[in-house]
Amino acid sequence: MEKIKLGLYGYGNVSRGVLFAAQRTSDLTVKAIFSKRAPSETGAYESGVPIYKKTELEDFEKELDVLVMCGGSFKDLPFETPFAARHFNIVDSFDTHKKIGEHFYNTDKAAREGKKTAIISVGWDPGIFSVFRAYFKAFLPEGCDFTFWGRGISEGHSEAVRRVDGVLDARQYTVPKNEALEYAKSALKNDLLPRQMHKRECYIAAKEGADKEKIEKTVVNMKNYFDEYDTKVYYISEEELKREHSALFHGGTVIRNGTTGKNGCHIQSANLSLSLGSNPEFTGSVLAAYARAAARLNKKGEIGCKTALDVAPLLLLENADAFCGNII
Amino acid sequence: MEKIKLGLYGYGNVSRGVLFAAQRTSDLTVKAIFSKRAPSETGAYESGVPIYKKTELEDFEKELDVLVMCGGSFKDLPFETPFAARHFNIVDSFDTHKKIGEHFYNTDKAAREGKKTAIISVGWDPGIFSVFRAYFKAFLPEGCDFTFWGRGISEGHSEAVRRVDGVLDARQYTVPKNEALEYAKSALKNDLLPRQMHKRECYIAAKEGADKEKIEKTVVNMKNYFDEYDTKVYYISEEELKREHSALFHGGTVIRNGTTGKNGCHIQSANLSLSLGSNPEFTGSVLAAYARAAARLNKKGEIGCKTALDVAPLLLLENADAFCGNII
Repeated sequence: MEKIKLGLYGYGNVSRGVLFAAQRTSDLTVKAIFSKRAPSETGAYESGVPIYKKTELEDFEKELDVLVMCGGSFKDLPFETPFAARHFNIVDSFDTHKKIGEHFYNTDKAAREGKKTAIISVGWDPGIFSVFRAYFKAFLPEGCDFTFWGRGISEGHSEAVRRVDGVLDARQYTVPKNEALEYAKSALKNDLLPRQMHKRECYIAAKEGADKEKIEKTVVNMKNYFDEYDTKVYYISEEELKREHSALFHGGTVIRNGTTGKNGCHIQSANLSLSLGSNPEFTGSVLAAYARAAARLNKKGEIGCKTALDVAPLLLLENADAFCGNII
Repeated sequence: MEKIKLGLYGYGNVSRGVLFAAQRTSDLTVKAIFSKRAPSETGAYESGVPIYKKTELEDFEKELDVLVMCGGSFKDLPFETPFAARHFNIVDSFDTHKKIGEHFYNTDKAAREGKKTAIISVGWDPGIFSVFRAYFKAFLPEGCDFTFWGRGISEGHSEAVRRVDGVLDARQYTVPKNEALEYAKSALKNDLLPRQMHKRECYIAAKEGADKEKIEKTVVNMKNYFDEYDTKVYYISEEELKREHSALFHGGTVIRNGTTGKNGCHIQSANLSLSLGSNPEFTGSVLAAYARAAARLNKKGEIGCKTALDVAPLLLLENADAFCGNII
């Protein structure tokens, strides 16, 4: 069987996660990595895969089955994904919830023009948490759900802290509150405020002579990021920050409680939790599985933009044919 | 929007669960119930739905969008599902794992002849537990998984006890072992024996003068059912059995632990658990959601037999069009 040939567009932690994931399958192979930094002239390789400049992408239109977009949701993907989707089947993990509609529209237009298949927003949330929320909602339409994230580093919040005057470097942990997790196990109404569900911890290395009191005030009151939460700020040295707060573990929980039967007399609960030793490697694994699905869907003529909700689970599995009646 | 018209074939607890579930949606409606027992001549109704004899089914070929097969997996579904799939789009919750391949083959043949869509084995296991095992396996191909059921009544095991000489009535609870659940949260190898994962509790009402010692010996040594487990037998009166052991709660847990990264250096875990106040009503809700999917797939021309793994999550949701970019 011919392998599905992947390209990785962008070369950071998630991209490495896709590479590791592909190397553990027998049907996916990474043929090229595209990076801003490492030109092919240097003959740079990673695990046997050549690294090219991003500007060399167009030479690979016939060489790749799926291009995995590994850039950031803020600056890279809104432009790179629609651009690439005209020429390649693509997957990305675009995660700015509010802008997914717009991103979907732009990508769909491009993919249809190029007769390509695009699957967007397939990280873990949005992505597979969306999938689980959809299943739970389908089976328990009358009910409420709760999503908890953490304990783990939020890159968006860390970045927001780094932009504050006087901050040298920072990491922000999102931490679910145990009382809220307990409550969510049986509650039939989600009336919890953001502050009741999560707290935030910021580890900050300040610049020399910076006004630490002012930094803290700016952080804890920052709109859309911290103002609705209880936030604790800890000042540590740059060295300690790098040494103690660089692990990329994360996790989260989706809970839905609903009722069934005459007058809703029976309570039913579904609870999904992820405990991730490495957030970017798990995201990489998810992207690799959906890249497989994108190649298969395109072969079936299903072009245009999709999300995880449009993809049947069987399309994600390596040995899809081996399931007698497709059940495991 | 025109509602999807359902028929319920068989009329027990699961069937009632489908009826309750449909009544809580705005796009599904139950038009007819077919039962061995209640003839239409009597004018029998349940929640406003007329009840017909099973033999009257053929008159409804043009009246129903999907027929929900609610019979038992042992005696009814192996014959009824392929028979019905030639004339109706169907869903069933066939759950004899070992015979799913054969059931799939027979149903697929019939459905293709009639240009109908059939979705089989969509209870909670097999069914949605299969779906979660598939997702977890796709994202963590190197790893192991564990499935726990209970605490809840297993109908198959209860029936097996009832067949023992001297038994008047019986209920069997499948109970997961806490030590095993703890172990499964982090183990990277599933080396647990059946006896280590679950225990079994039998509540038996014996016939007058029955040899209780002999019954117990027969039960605990019964092949395929009890011989690989630690089984406790409790004798109680028929009255107490009915009063204390008729609740249909159940539940279960699927866990997968896997590794990612260079040399598998990071451990990733996914854990899904269901806590069901009513097993048949939850199964009914799942069947109702897949009935919606069967109607939609048939409209798209996707005929033949499917399982839950072939069905994209979006097809299960009532307001599928309302999701901007299909993400929730």
